[in-house]
Amino acid sequence: MTYQDQLSPDQGSQILLDFPWTYDLEEIHIKQGLGRILAEDVVARIDVPSFDKSPYDGYALKAENTKGASKDQPIAFEIIEEIPAGAFPKKALGDFQAAKILTGSALPQGANCIIKFEATDFTEREVFIKEEVTANSNVVTKGESMKKGQLLLEKGSRLDSPSLGVLASQGIEKISVYKKPKLGFFLSGSELKEVGQDLEPGQIYDSNHLTFVSIFKTMGFDVKSYGLVPDDFDQIVALTQRAVDECDLVVTTGGASVGDYDYSSRAVEILGGQILFTRTAMKPGGSLVASRLKDKTVLNLSGNPASAILGLFRVCLPYLKKLLGYKDLYCPSFQAILKEPMKKKSPRIRILRGNLEYAGGKVYFVEKSGQGNGVLSSFVDCQVFAEVPAGTAYMEAGDLIKVYLVDQLF
Amino acid sequence: MTYQDQLSPDQGSQILLDFPWTYDLEEIHIKQGLGRILAEDVVARIDVPSFDKSPYDGYALKAENTKGASKDQPIAFEIIEEIPAGAFPKKALGDFQAAKILTGSALPQGANCIIKFEATDFTEREVFIKEEVTANSNVVTKGESMKKGQLLLEKGSRLDSPSLGVLASQGIEKISVYKKPKLGFFLSGSELKEVGQDLEPGQIYDSNHLTFVSIFKTMGFDVKSYGLVPDDFDQIVALTQRAVDECDLVVTTGGASVGDYDYSSRAVEILGGQILFTRTAMKPGGSLVASRLKDKTVLNLSGNPASAILGLFRVCLPYLKKLLGYKDLYCPSFQAILKEPMKKKSPRIRILRGNLEYAGGKVYFVEKSGQGNGVLSSFVDCQVFAEVPAGTAYMEAGDLIKVYLVDQLF
Repeated sequence: MTYQDQLSPDQGSQILLDFPWTYDLEEIHIKQGLGRILAEDVVARIDVPSFDKSPYDGYALKAENTKGASKDQPIAFEIIEEIPAGAFPKKALGDFQAAKILTGSALPQGANCIIKFEATDFTEREVFIKEEVTANSNVVTKGESMKKGQLLLEKGSRLDSPSLGVLASQGIEKISVYKKPKLGFFLSGSELKEVGQDLEPGQIYDSNHLTFVSIFKTMGFDVKSYGLVPDDFDQIVALTQRAVDECDLVVTTGGASVGDYDYSSRAVEILGGQILFTRTAMKPGGSLVASRLKDKTVLNLSGNPASAILGLFRVCLPYLKKLLGYKDLYCPSFQAILKEPMKKKSPRIRILRGNLEYAGGKVYFVEKSGQGNGVLSSFVDCQVFAEVPAGTAYMEAGDLIKVYLVDQLF
Repeated sequence: MTYQDQLSPDQGSQILLDFPWTYDLEEIHIKQGLGRILAEDVVARIDVPSFDKSPYDGYALKAENTKGASKDQPIAFEIIEEIPAGAFPKKALGDFQAAKILTGSALPQGANCIIKFEATDFTEREVFIKEEVTANSNVVTKGESMKKGQLLLEKGSRLDSPSLGVLASQGIEKISVYKKPKLGFFLSGSELKEVGQDLEPGQIYDSNHLTFVSIFKTMGFDVKSYGLVPDDFDQIVALTQRAVDECDLVVTTGGASVGDYDYSSRAVEILGGQILFTRTAMKPGGSLVASRLKDKTVLNLSGNPASAILGLFRVCLPYLKKLLGYKDLYCPSFQAILKEPMKKKSPRIRILRGNLEYAGGKVYFVEKSGQGNGVLSSFVDCQVFAEVPAGTAYMEAGDLIKVYLVDQLF
């Protein structure tokens, strides 16, 4: 099979997205909400503020009574009440009456403006206004921040710090969020050793375990790691079965040393599963086996760190975001200007690691060094992945290239 | 004092940055490293890979022996060894000898290229090569991913998922990170109620508590919250004292209903502290009291959510990042193109909440609705803060405006 006959990464994504998924919800206190995905629209229950209030320490009065006031001819108002913070005014104002008011307090009935302390002269019983003011001056009006009935937060959005404050300001204590899907992860490779062990000749330290567990946790999964196994078919079969039984989906890396496709797909097949696809037309990351076993999805990624991350990103991310409950399944993407020419031929889609540079209102894509299949370090502090379209022979500096913002992945 | 006489936000930042800070370090397992700040440069201890290896299942041999090979005239090589994954080759290759090799395995001595299985014909004892190959074809060379001695991760950088993988690939089990500074937080406001309680007339639900605790946790602080107190001077004094005794720095919001400046600064002063500044020339967020008490910094932010967040961001963030151990103290910033004219006069620096839009290689700043001092909802999904310079009367659509990338704050 040549790469022209292979699935495109988008076709691979769609095959995964087409499988149904049953969402489990849970109700949590907003204090536990950071990073969780909302499973309901949140609509304002109350106006915020729920009354007209003062943004300053000052005097509340009727603006129309200030007509003609000046430094030379101040107008006197009788102070009929003092409104402490958190208290509600007891009296309605008549003409040429004022209430002393503190920041955040509610305006008394009849008042329609606030004049700051420092702009007035006052005694205990009277305040002298030295300027004309218009109605609604210095008033924070009811509903200015949030109007009752207004959509505040959308179902499928990730709760960030301000979102939690928005919920608190509405007096909302509990919210419905999507339960974290349980993702089972293991990796295989007889040549791999874990940190803390000594290397024999021909062995290398594994980096995928911690990288992928961290990526999946950052994304919002409840990760169950089954650790590292050698390239032993029986062990891989047993672990595949166990992980599928215990988790909502299973991701693995490696087994590459005996051919990615062979072991992972044979394990799924021997257990009665169905292979969906074994590669997509992209580089790095094309070799990625997707299958279904007992109505669950199994994703076998390459053992090469870069291939594994990029295949996961380009083919599986929309599906993973769907499972997490996100309303937006795709990474934000846009056109950036290529800073340096891209000389490598790309018969298939090619994904490049890089960063953005900005100058004079323009945005440039700058390729990072270390684009090999096995190079992990170029993902550190990596802001974007750029996508070279299939069939590209050469790109000039100044050409536009599609980039995906991915720093939130890591 | 007019705003021309006020400190600039940058001057405020510098006053804070000039105070010395003693860093505490801790050694942690890399499994606990996500999001922590490295307290040491990490230099590669070993080459990765530490030997020339094969990226494919195939045959290792001497490239020069393939000269003249073609489909019609294949050249035969004797298979002298099979190298399983994770094993090291035992034999050196002579001319026209080959070793069967699996992905990830080390090349035997004498070999300088790999030919994929599928490009060959083979029996158990011989493999037939049908093309000429050049030296180093299909070889992952020793040190290709990381070279011994190379700087991999810088002191003061935040550990993301790939960074942890980089450490693992070096066999590094423990690393030195900055201990999380203990940040004491409380807020005051007699008009404030917590969620779960009923509102009396004139009261509002507090949103700052959860917003700020979440922001500080996201930044990397060990946050100790002392909760909500009414605008009672004695309580504020007592809590200030306790928080300063128990924490490395103290941040508060509110007390705004009796004048931000009064209570917070009087509490610090009565306890023998020193006020550094009480406002800076920016809007929103200008009213921010910074002081020192018992060699610790106390930051009193406005009770208005937007003023508090923006004052914290523009004046205090570099200082907070210094305490956390970051090498880069400032948010990434660049020039974007103003999408709509900015009509409001800005005698002081004005900070606008907004998002970026990209089109054709250009980057635009789009203001979010809800720029008031008290509006929190416009921080939800807010990517950037734009800065209108002091003294700006008007900005045209198409003008350049400085934006700070702040989505990582939340």
